[in-house]
Amino acid sequence: MNEHALHHLFEKPRIFQAPMAGAQDTRLALAVCKAGGVGGVPAGMLGLPALATTLETMRQKAKLQDWWAVNFFCHTTPSPDEAAMGQWQSALAPYYKEAGIDLAKFDGDASRVPFGHDACVLVERYVPPIVSFHFGLPHPDLLERVKLCGCLVVSTATTVAEALWLEQNGADAIIAQGNEAGGHRGSFLRPHAPPLHGSLPPEGADLPWGGPAADLYFSSDTYLSSQIGTLALVPQIVAAVDVPVIAAGGIADAAGVRAALALGASAVQVGTAYLCSKEATTSAVHRAALQSDAARHTALTRLFSGRPARGIVNRVMRELGPMSEAAPAFPLASAGMTPLRSHWEAKGSGDFSPLWAGQNVSACREATAAAITQSLAQGLR
Amino acid sequence: MNEHALHHLFEKPRIFQAPMAGAQDTRLALAVCKAGGVGGVPAGMLGLPALATTLETMRQKAKLQDWWAVNFFCHTTPSPDEAAMGQWQSALAPYYKEAGIDLAKFDGDASRVPFGHDACVLVERYVPPIVSFHFGLPHPDLLERVKLCGCLVVSTATTVAEALWLEQNGADAIIAQGNEAGGHRGSFLRPHAPPLHGSLPPEGADLPWGGPAADLYFSSDTYLSSQIGTLALVPQIVAAVDVPVIAAGGIADAAGVRAALALGASAVQVGTAYLCSKEATTSAVHRAALQSDAARHTALTRLFSGRPARGIVNRVMRELGPMSEAAPAFPLASAGMTPLRSHWEAKGSGDFSPLWAGQNVSACREATAAAITQSLAQGLR
Repeated sequence: MNEHALHHLFEKPRIFQAPMAGAQDTRLALAVCKAGGVGGVPAGMLGLPALATTLETMRQKAKLQDWWAVNFFCHTTPSPDEAAMGQWQSALAPYYKEAGIDLAKFDGDASRVPFGHDACVLVERYVPPIVSFHFGLPHPDLLERVKLCGCLVVSTATTVAEALWLEQNGADAIIAQGNEAGGHRGSFLRPHAPPLHGSLPPEGADLPWGGPAADLYFSSDTYLSSQIGTLALVPQIVAAVDVPVIAAGGIADAAGVRAALALGASAVQVGTAYLCSKEATTSAVHRAALQSDAARHTALTRLFSGRPARGIVNRVMRELGPMSEAAPAFPLASAGMTPLRSHWEAKGSGDFSPLWAGQNVSACREATAAAITQSLAQGLR
Repeated sequence: MNEHALHHLFEKPRIFQAPMAGAQDTRLALAVCKAGGVGGVPAGMLGLPALATTLETMRQKAKLQDWWAVNFFCHTTPSPDEAAMGQWQSALAPYYKEAGIDLAKFDGDASRVPFGHDACVLVERYVPPIVSFHFGLPHPDLLERVKLCGCLVVSTATTVAEALWLEQNGADAIIAQGNEAGGHRGSFLRPHAPPLHGSLPPEGADLPWGGPAADLYFSSDTYLSSQIGTLALVPQIVAAVDVPVIAAGGIADAAGVRAALALGASAVQVGTAYLCSKEATTSAVHRAALQSDAARHTALTRLFSGRPARGIVNRVMRELGPMSEAAPAFPLASAGMTPLRSHWEAKGSGDFSPLWAGQNVSACREATAAAITQSLAQGLR
C-alpha cells in the first residue's frame, strides 16, 4: 500500500465526484479537480483506445497535486445463455414492434467489459492516483499490479460484510454506498441471511476473489429489503474497518456532507448533484427528468444492465417491473434495450432510457461543476 | 395550535423515544422522561381500560415539565373479506398442522383499533402533552378535539408529499421516517408515480382525510423501491415544510443524532436502540435476535399485520415471502399468526414472531433507558 499517498488523500475530508458511466467524461472530472474536489472518470464502458485517451487527458490536464480516480467494473462476464437472451428478446419484442424496429437488431453483446490485463497495462502506463472498482475487486494478480504502481485502490461496499471483505482483500479505502445512491449498486456478496426464495448459499462460500455470481440478488424482495440506508450503513462500516470510509448515497448539499462526516466518514462521494452540471454529458431527456417531479420516484431496476441500479421510474420499468427476471445477467441486458432507447430519445422521451438518479435530486441544477463542488465543500468546514 | 407549547418543545433539540407497541409500556417512557428525553407510550394495541390506566400512570408519574407522547394508529379498519381471510388461513394451514394447532383457532379479528371517539374522550380527560399518530391523521373532527385540549399533534411522513399533507392538515410537527426505521412504516398516501403494476390512481385522489387505502403499497417492488433513506428524506422534508421535523430511522448513537441535526432536523426519534433496555417489555426471543448476527438482515414485511413493517428476517418471512399478498389488509393479518407465534416462542424460537428492528442495531444492549438516553444526548451538544 502507498501509505504516504493514503495519508495525504485522507489528511482532510474531501468531496469525491462519483464516476458516472454514460453521463460524463474527463471534462467533469477535471473541473472538479480544479475546484478542489476529487474527480472521477468512468472507464466501465470505454474500449481500450478511449481508455488510453482518457488517462492521457487526465495525466496532461490535471495538476500533479490533484487527486482523481478512474473507475472500473470488475464483474465476471457471464457465459452465453441462449435461453436467457431468448426470454429477454421476447419480453422486448412488443416494444420493438411498436417502435417499428426490426427484431433482427436485437443484440445480446456485453456492453461493459470488466477490468483485465489490457486495461491494467494502461493503468501501469499512466498511473492514476486512485483506481476505484465497482462490484468487488479484480483478480488478486491484477490488483497486485495496480498496487505496485502506487495507485490507491478504492472499492464499494453496500453491507458491513462487503466492507470487511474489501479491507481483507486489499482496498485502501472503502466507499459505503447507502441505498439512496443513484446508478449501480456496488453489491458483490450475497446477503448474509439465507435467501427468502430460491436456494443459493449465503455469502462468501464460493467467492474466491469476489468475482460475484450474476444472480447475486436472487429475489427482488430479499435484495430490495436488505439494502441499507446511508445513515445506518456508514457508522456500522466505520466501526467495522480500519481503513478510511467514503460515504455515498443521498448526499446532495453541504448539510449532507456535514451529516456524513458526523457519522464518521473520512470523505464523501457525490454523483447525482453533478448530473445536470454544465460539464456532464448527461442527455437532454435525462436532465429534464432529473429536474421534473418524476425524479421524486426512483427505483432499483435491473432492466438496463442486469444488475440493480437506481433510476427514475419510467414506462419500461412500470410495464416490465423494475426487477423483472426477464432481463438477463449483467451486463447482457443493455444491448437489447439500446435500439429502443435511441428510438425514443430521438422523440424526446426517456421511457426506455436508464435515468440514473439517487433519492435526493434537490441539488440538480445547470451550474458549473466548480459551483457545485464549492457548495458541497461548505460542509467540510 | 398550542404555539407556546410548540415553542417550548422545540426550543432545543431533543431525543424522542419511539412508541413501540408490543415492546414497552409506561415504564420505558417514564424512564426516558426522567433522563431528559421525550417518552412515548404506544396505544395502538390497548383496549380502553388499559389506555385509561396508561394515561393515568403517565399523568401521575411524569413531572409536569416532562414531555411525553401517546401514540395512536389511525388506519381505516377494512371491511370483512372472507375470501382474503380464507386465503390467509390456507397460507398458514401447513404451519398450524406442523405445530399441532387446531385450525379452528385461526382468527381474523382486528387486533389494532384506530383512534376514535372513546379514545379521544380519554385524551380529553388526561391531556397528554403530545399526541402522535401513525398512518396519517384521524378524522378532522377528532383531530380538532385533540388540538382544542392543547395537545401537540405529531404524525409520520415517509415522503415529501406526505409531509406536505400532514402540515396542511394540522400536524404541529412531523416525524420524517427514513427507510432504515424498524417497525411499521407510517406511509399513508400512495406513491406519487403511477403504480408499477396494477391500476390504482396516484396519491391523493380519493383520500378525503388521510384514512388510507389498505392496499396502499399495491406492489411490493413499487413500494419497497420507493422508500427513502433518512439521509435523503430529512433534508427534503425540512426544505418543504415550515413545521419542526423529527428525524427517525437508523439513528442509534450520538453520531447519528449529530448527523440528523446537521440535516436540519429539530429533534430525533429513536426506537431500536431502546428495544433491549431494562425497562422495555421486549420478549426474550426478540432480545436474543436483536443481539445476534441475524439482526444484520431486516426486511419490510406485511406478514404480521398486513402493512409493511421492518423486522429481522425469520423463517415465516423467508418461506412465505416478506411482502406476500397472501396476508390480508391491515390489521387483519395479526390474529392468524398469534397461535403460531405463541407456540414457537414457548420453544424459544422467533420464527413466527414480529422481530421489529431498524437497520442499525449496533446500540442494542441490556442497559437502562437512562444510560441509552444520556448516550444519545451526547449528540445534542
